[in-house]
Amino acid sequence: MRAALLLAGRGLGNTWPNPSVGCVIVKDGVVVGRGWTAPGGRPHAETEALGRAGRAAYGATAYVTLEPCCHWGRTPPCTGALIAAGVARVVVALRDPDPRVDGQGLDQLRAAGIEVTEGVLREEAMAVTAGFIKRVADGLPLVTLKLASTLDGRIATRTGESRWITGPAARRAVHAMRARHDAVLVGSGTLLADDPDLTCRLDGAAKIPTVRVVADARLRTPPTARLFTSTAPAWVATRPGHPAQALEALQARGAEIIEVPAAETGAGLDAGALMRALAVRGLTRVMVEGGAGLAAALLRAGLVDRLAWFHAPAVMGADGRPAADASPLDVLAAMPRFRRVSAVSLGPDLLSEFEAA
Amino acid sequence: MRAALLLAGRGLGNTWPNPSVGCVIVKDGVVVGRGWTAPGGRPHAETEALGRAGRAAYGATAYVTLEPCCHWGRTPPCTGALIAAGVARVVVALRDPDPRVDGQGLDQLRAAGIEVTEGVLREEAMAVTAGFIKRVADGLPLVTLKLASTLDGRIATRTGESRWITGPAARRAVHAMRARHDAVLVGSGTLLADDPDLTCRLDGAAKIPTVRVVADARLRTPPTARLFTSTAPAWVATRPGHPAQALEALQARGAEIIEVPAAETGAGLDAGALMRALAVRGLTRVMVEGGAGLAAALLRAGLVDRLAWFHAPAVMGADGRPAADASPLDVLAAMPRFRRVSAVSLGPDLLSEFEAA
Repeated sequence: MRAALLLAGRGLGNTWPNPSVGCVIVKDGVVVGRGWTAPGGRPHAETEALGRAGRAAYGATAYVTLEPCCHWGRTPPCTGALIAAGVARVVVALRDPDPRVDGQGLDQLRAAGIEVTEGVLREEAMAVTAGFIKRVADGLPLVTLKLASTLDGRIATRTGESRWITGPAARRAVHAMRARHDAVLVGSGTLLADDPDLTCRLDGAAKIPTVRVVADARLRTPPTARLFTSTAPAWVATRPGHPAQALEALQARGAEIIEVPAAETGAGLDAGALMRALAVRGLTRVMVEGGAGLAAALLRAGLVDRLAWFHAPAVMGADGRPAADASPLDVLAAMPRFRRVSAVSLGPDLLSEFEAA
Repeated sequence: MRAALLLAGRGLGNTWPNPSVGCVIVKDGVVVGRGWTAPGGRPHAETEALGRAGRAAYGATAYVTLEPCCHWGRTPPCTGALIAAGVARVVVALRDPDPRVDGQGLDQLRAAGIEVTEGVLREEAMAVTAGFIKRVADGLPLVTLKLASTLDGRIATRTGESRWITGPAARRAVHAMRARHDAVLVGSGTLLADDPDLTCRLDGAAKIPTVRVVADARLRTPPTARLFTSTAPAWVATRPGHPAQALEALQARGAEIIEVPAAETGAGLDAGALMRALAVRGLTRVMVEGGAGLAAALLRAGLVDRLAWFHAPAVMGADGRPAADASPLDVLAAMPRFRRVSAVSLGPDLLSEFEAA
């Protein structure tokens, strides 16, 4: 199952709206087939692994990180394929909360006389499958907030200069992180300040294009933004009511417009509604790269599942631009706290990763 | 020599105005004596080690982290003691830049027929002896700036609440850090906000009292401050010209008043003059614990040698109080940068330590 989980990890960012699943088929102590969800979500991991195992799958044990599907989608059900291949035993880490599956996949296998074991390395599988589970169970994507700041939490000088606070190794790690997410989201202030293309530049990564999303209540994104120079999808989330002409100018550049209610505070979009809108479109893992307004709104709403903070070994002082806007926070006990899961040196910088506490 | 350096490390914070030195005496491959500078700076390491070695010192090799003194201070010169004990060889890591020594100690040993080797583990010895060297060579103490903040660099809520951003393990580490410094320095804003006693509370530490210093240009420190409830020395650095009555009220509580010119900017004291005044009084290692004004002034003046940053796994937002006041900084290239030398988990918090780049 550990091998299957590693295979599942390979597909992260590459399989939405489907989960990234890993499958290892073992017969007489020998691995006869391996597979993981292919880019775009199809073929499924089981199909890949069964294809590699061929006849050797007969009487074998299949280790799958997520309950096999039992419904006809754009592919035939994996339960049928496992049964047809004559697999003797299926070991599953996690039940699929999708109401079209949710235990029925396991029931079908059992009904066909296959021995089924459930819950092996469940927690580890939860970590890999968290984005899909969250989309299905809560209607929200898994949100990773990535910030790069000085030790005193500044992301740019007062004049807006931010290139480069962190070094090349940290910036490469950001691209690897983008690759493991379905989409990258920024606020319009960051877009206007940096004009980033937000693409995932990694040598040798067979990657479906990462979606780039701008949260832009006031529709400030110019049609000339570098965002629209890439063929990867570019989505602009904005509040309803903008003139059709302005929307069409962006659509003409390839943008997909997503209408999201404005925040009740009046500034920006409703963070929860924005995330629900992204989940409805199938996104399971969203990486947020600032700016301070969007970061604060997500933190305030409790929508940040994971936090990736790059600290450069420098101190800017209070005239630098903050990483997160005012909360406002009156009581220290109300401050959003996280649990650190790792700390890694990247050249001069330090990347600390956290999960919601 | 590594053993001698470890011994020297034991005396840090405990020997000012003298350096903390370690000495190991080896004869025929066996350690016959060890010593390090005693609390208060006397007896010296060599005296301690020779005392333990007794007659075994005859014909032995003495490893000393700093050139032995050759002048009569409040103790007789160590060169004389080494010669009298009949030591055959002296290995020294570092030359003592004190003009009363500065190679003359080694010359005296050589003149007495002792074999002298210089420069062994020089860099490691520099790290341990940096405070003393800096005081003698530059007329400044080694300055460690310690800050404890959220990931976004906030040290208190907008209402001033700061207890506790970091956890108990981090706070214990702060006390251990105080123990390795001669003095702890804070700005008057921090004193007024937190009323800390800034003592070093560590079980089992045989420690001369750490000096507590307040940088207080406007003389806002109240005679009722908790700072004055401890028997450890309390110094108040302030600009000249305050009414004698106000000064006397603090002196009556045990405070030593240090007059330092005001900063040219008008806010606070001249940071360089303050540090020179502390070096003149013998301090070799000063730990600065904020607040934001003092931190920014020291960073701006390039006076921070070492940086110890505790990051709590939390995000406060821009209404929290900053770790360092505005610089002001217009060009990113001008930002003070450091070199990370360690990163350590302390419960939920992360301590990163840096040296001036």
